[in-house]
Amino acid sequence: MPRLLILDPDADAYAQILARSALPDLEVDTAEAAEAADPAPYDILLGPPDLLAAVLPQAVRARWVQSTWAGVRPLVDADLARDDLVATGVKGVFGEAMSEYVFGYLLMIHQRALERLEAQRARTWRQVAPRKLAGKTMGIMGVGDIGSAIAATARSLGMRVRGLTRSGRSEAVDESFAPERRMAFAQGLDVLVSTLPDTSATTGIIDERLLDGLAPESILVNVGRGANVDEPALAAALRRGRPSWAVLDVFRREPLPPDHPFWDLDNVFITCHAAALSHPTDIVPIFVDNYRRFREGRPLRHVVDLVRGY
Amino acid sequence: MPRLLILDPDADAYAQILARSALPDLEVDTAEAAEAADPAPYDILLGPPDLLAAVLPQAVRARWVQSTWAGVRPLVDADLARDDLVATGVKGVFGEAMSEYVFGYLLMIHQRALERLEAQRARTWRQVAPRKLAGKTMGIMGVGDIGSAIAATARSLGMRVRGLTRSGRSEAVDESFAPERRMAFAQGLDVLVSTLPDTSATTGIIDERLLDGLAPESILVNVGRGANVDEPALAAALRRGRPSWAVLDVFRREPLPPDHPFWDLDNVFITCHAAALSHPTDIVPIFVDNYRRFREGRPLRHVVDLVRGY
Repeated sequence: MPRLLILDPDADAYAQILARSALPDLEVDTAEAAEAADPAPYDILLGPPDLLAAVLPQAVRARWVQSTWAGVRPLVDADLARDDLVATGVKGVFGEAMSEYVFGYLLMIHQRALERLEAQRARTWRQVAPRKLAGKTMGIMGVGDIGSAIAATARSLGMRVRGLTRSGRSEAVDESFAPERRMAFAQGLDVLVSTLPDTSATTGIIDERLLDGLAPESILVNVGRGANVDEPALAAALRRGRPSWAVLDVFRREPLPPDHPFWDLDNVFITCHAAALSHPTDIVPIFVDNYRRFREGRPLRHVVDLVRGY
Repeated sequence: MPRLLILDPDADAYAQILARSALPDLEVDTAEAAEAADPAPYDILLGPPDLLAAVLPQAVRARWVQSTWAGVRPLVDADLARDDLVATGVKGVFGEAMSEYVFGYLLMIHQRALERLEAQRARTWRQVAPRKLAGKTMGIMGVGDIGSAIAATARSLGMRVRGLTRSGRSEAVDESFAPERRMAFAQGLDVLVSTLPDTSATTGIIDERLLDGLAPESILVNVGRGANVDEPALAAALRRGRPSWAVLDVFRREPLPPDHPFWDLDNVFITCHAAALSHPTDIVPIFVDNYRRFREGRPLRHVVDLVRGY
């Protein structure tokens, strides 16, 4: 009978939800931290990629690891070049939440909600005219399941959408660009959104030249990975006012260090890697589907390509 | 040759944009305030309904008045029961802006953006989990062009949508209710949005009983008219926390009086009748279309029914 170790701060919640699925022939143990677990006897591991990576050297029996997060860089760096081990990720569950994050902040900025709130707190009746998102152009870097969900919302709000994709082709956007055309992609954008994973090809892709191409009054949103951004270049660009705002959920170092220049800027929204959190109720069905495939010897879904890095 | 008086604080902007349309046989004068105008010689008046209503008793030659606003209550109250005079309003231009206002504030509340901002200003890395709008239920009172635009955005974000309409039927929503079923309509709503005009049938329709039916953690958004709301009942309901938030762009008295209880509540967003402003570039095409109809003796569009009140 396969043995599963759930290694997650929310391990008990995962175990309870998993119990409702009554999977046959599965023995389940839980641990909330890497130190609390002996991974050696387990065939399957479920948890966030940093915890999985920490215990993998000791997980000698493991044949499958299921990440609870979308970003899997720690698994890539762990160098799992073991023929007998497959790593799977999470797709299709973060699109709605990411879209609500992106448009929540974009609309809040366009509504000038903070200026209005300041007037309200001063008990002042002052008409603050909103700016409109409709008719503006958004560029999305990375048009996978998250980028496609953001593109759909943007189009429903009357925006034009460009996509930057490895293949240079996507049905989810109005106009697609391959990576080598990234300057043309960025030129004149009102909104630039990154959903890119952290790979060697995406490190520092949002640099001074790219930011220089954006429209005046433009907004950068990063829900991809911190390493996508040349952070000193972005801080300098924000001081010049192009982009006029940045909405950042991810950073090169998390938690963001106390002396980081982003804290000093008043045209940045800093959120703490919380745009789309992993909820056991969303993740368990992916595990259950993959577990049935695992037992039947069929290919698993959302297998991480450890060479491409996502 | 017909004579048009543009009576509007933005009269010059209207006149300049209108001049580009090169309408034949139209003489145009402008005034920025009612006191500055002698309306007697004009066949057509264009302006906000309060200014139009103020000069109508002297506008003895007027055969057509075109409002620049969506809300036309002042024209209804002016009692234009003159067989030779038609009043027209504005439709189809405020849906996008209203939708951006409604979802900007709804998403901002669900993102807990103010809590996050407080943590940021204290330079604290604290993960504040968002709540999701997807899967929740919105009820829209009044499913005209504005309500339909809001419904379309809600559905694209994965919400269920109920509509309260005079006819009890609308294709724009998932479930329609006639006015006599308003308590069933309100029961358990996560979000209640009013787009209702100010008529005898809508005065105080959002009262204590209706608010009691909403879900815990619910949000009220009023982009209709202030008179839709029983304001003392709403203030009391907000103190009890159901709804947990109100987003109010319109009030019974505007500007909102300095001693109004809404100013003291910290779960209200007060904006100053600025959710969707009239821009001459949006309004002039409606006037031009109606002017051509007027000259050709065809029926005008967006005629205000002065009995129904909208």
